[in-house]
Amino acid sequence: MSYARQMLDTYPGAVNVDPGLLAAAIDALSDCAQACTADTDADLTEPNLAEMVTCIRLCLNCEDVCTAAVAVMSRPAQSDASVTRPLLEACVAICKSCGDECERHAHMQHCRVCAEACRRCEQACRELINAMK
Amino acid sequence: MSYARQMLDTYPGAVNVDPGLLAAAIDALSDCAQACTADTDADLTEPNLAEMVTCIRLCLNCEDVCTAAVAVMSRPAQSDASVTRPLLEACVAICKSCGDECERHAHMQHCRVCAEACRRCEQACRELINAMK
Amino acid sequence: MSYARQMLDTYPGAVNVDPGLLAAAIDALSDCAQACTADTDADLTEPNLAEMVTCIRLCLNCEDVCTAAVAVMSRPAQSDASVTRPLLEACVAICKSCGDECERHAHMQHCRVCAEACRRCEQACRELINAMK
Amino acid sequence: MSYARQMLDTYPGAVNVDPGLLAAAIDALSDCAQACTADTDADLTEPNLAEMVTCIRLCLNCEDVCTAAVAVMSRPAQSDASVTRPLLEACVAICKSCGDECERHAHMQHCRVCAEACRRCEQACRELINAMK
Repeated sequence: MSYARQMLDTYPGAVNVDPGLLAAAIDALSDCAQACTADTDADLTEPNLAEMVTCIRLCLNCEDVCTAAVAVMSRPAQSDASVTRPLLEACVAICKSCGDECERHAHMQHCRVCAEACRRCEQACRELINAMK
Repeated sequence: MSYARQMLDTYPGAVNVDPGLLAAAIDALSDCAQACTADTDADLTEPNLAEMVTCIRLCLNCEDVCTAAVAVMSRPAQSDASVTRPLLEACVAICKSCGDECERHAHMQHCRVCAEACRRCEQACRELINAMK
Repeated sequence: MSYARQMLDTYPGAVNVDPGLLAAAIDALSDCAQACTADTDADLTEPNLAEMVTCIRLCLNCEDVCTAAVAVMSRPAQSDASVTRPLLEACVAICKSCGDECERHAHMQHCRVCAEACRRCEQACRELINAMK
Repeated sequence: MSYARQMLDTYPGAVNVDPGLLAAAIDALSDCAQACTADTDADLTEPNLAEMVTCIRLCLNCEDVCTAAVAVMSRPAQSDASVTRPLLEACVAICKSCGDECERHAHMQHCRVCAEACRRCEQACRELINAMK
């Protein structure tokens, strides 16, 4: 069981959303942020740098937005849909763009792995947004 | 002139929004993130902790969302409204809530300063969202 | 296999440290940052707030230092011991303090889980520092 | 007066270091993190990408370490030299490397500005470390 799930299961207050979905989203956001960070560095190691520029830029944005979402979603007490919904929507949008771009050159193994992390994160955020309705 | 403005003025590519508004938003986001971080610590120093809990929670969220927005808005090349708009909307929402809460106990000087940083950030983000239309 | 490990296994450049130790440290840092973030919120939900202040403050520092270390350690190319060693030493120090404090009130389940995440992170960072020698 | 300074001047607890030096360091760290973030994007816009790779990598590390230091130094209450000293030492080391690299191609205006932000940050962190002794 992930730490995110253990922390939710021992949370002393109320959590207003399914803890399984929330923990899955936190874990997917955390994995995606890490994969995008690592992929930036891997991209910069490739010989055809000009082809990697868009991927690097999308990975940088994806890392920053997902890192913020990990933190905000990890503190369920003050959860306010006017903040969490647009934040998760920003995650969905950047994970979609970044996943698409990584998939475009999935012959590079690191981009294939990163694309998978982005897809899972996009999906987990969509499910959480739907559960918040 | 702030570093954010100097970096925009020396940016080698196109910036698709008024650089003055963008630099003002980046500076206000950066100030707000720092003020909220400092205010969390100041709140924890106050004797009536129970009264400060909501303020601490809002400051923590405000810090995280604004820090992400500083980074994303500081890289204008890949600016994509499907990401930046909800991210800035999340900033507006949390700056509004956090500014309101800080103002509620503005007799504490640190909350008064933090409220001002939140208000300026909320305003700068709104102006940037409007300019992106 | 974690994404951190998958990204290292597909990294197109050289990694100058054992990839198993590096991936374990990245995963432990990421788990610790998340657990500390969640624990801050859980602490703020407890009735005896005055007892939780030190724990909250240590968790906040631990989150910030570990989050930075996740990012820096996820980009192995430019790894420079003059930066990574003190950064990891800061992680060891704050994980030690935060783990000790959380253990002090481990009757609160969330602090018990957080203490475990801190201990594992401290240990993983120590092993990585030793491997860098 | 910067928000960092205003927050310190209204801090309800004790601050165990000269508030002018601390505020200057927080502001310089914040400026440096932002300049490095912006410089990464500017570097990626340059035609000779292969020449910019080291600069991009150093800017990414500098951004992450300085962002963590802004947060930790903005919360003076729990300040513990076993954490803050190595963290500031990591800042000094990465600001030095990043400033040197940016200066190497200071004919690019954005790198000249970023080098200046790194130099100021390195200096402010050194002064703060000395004041902590």
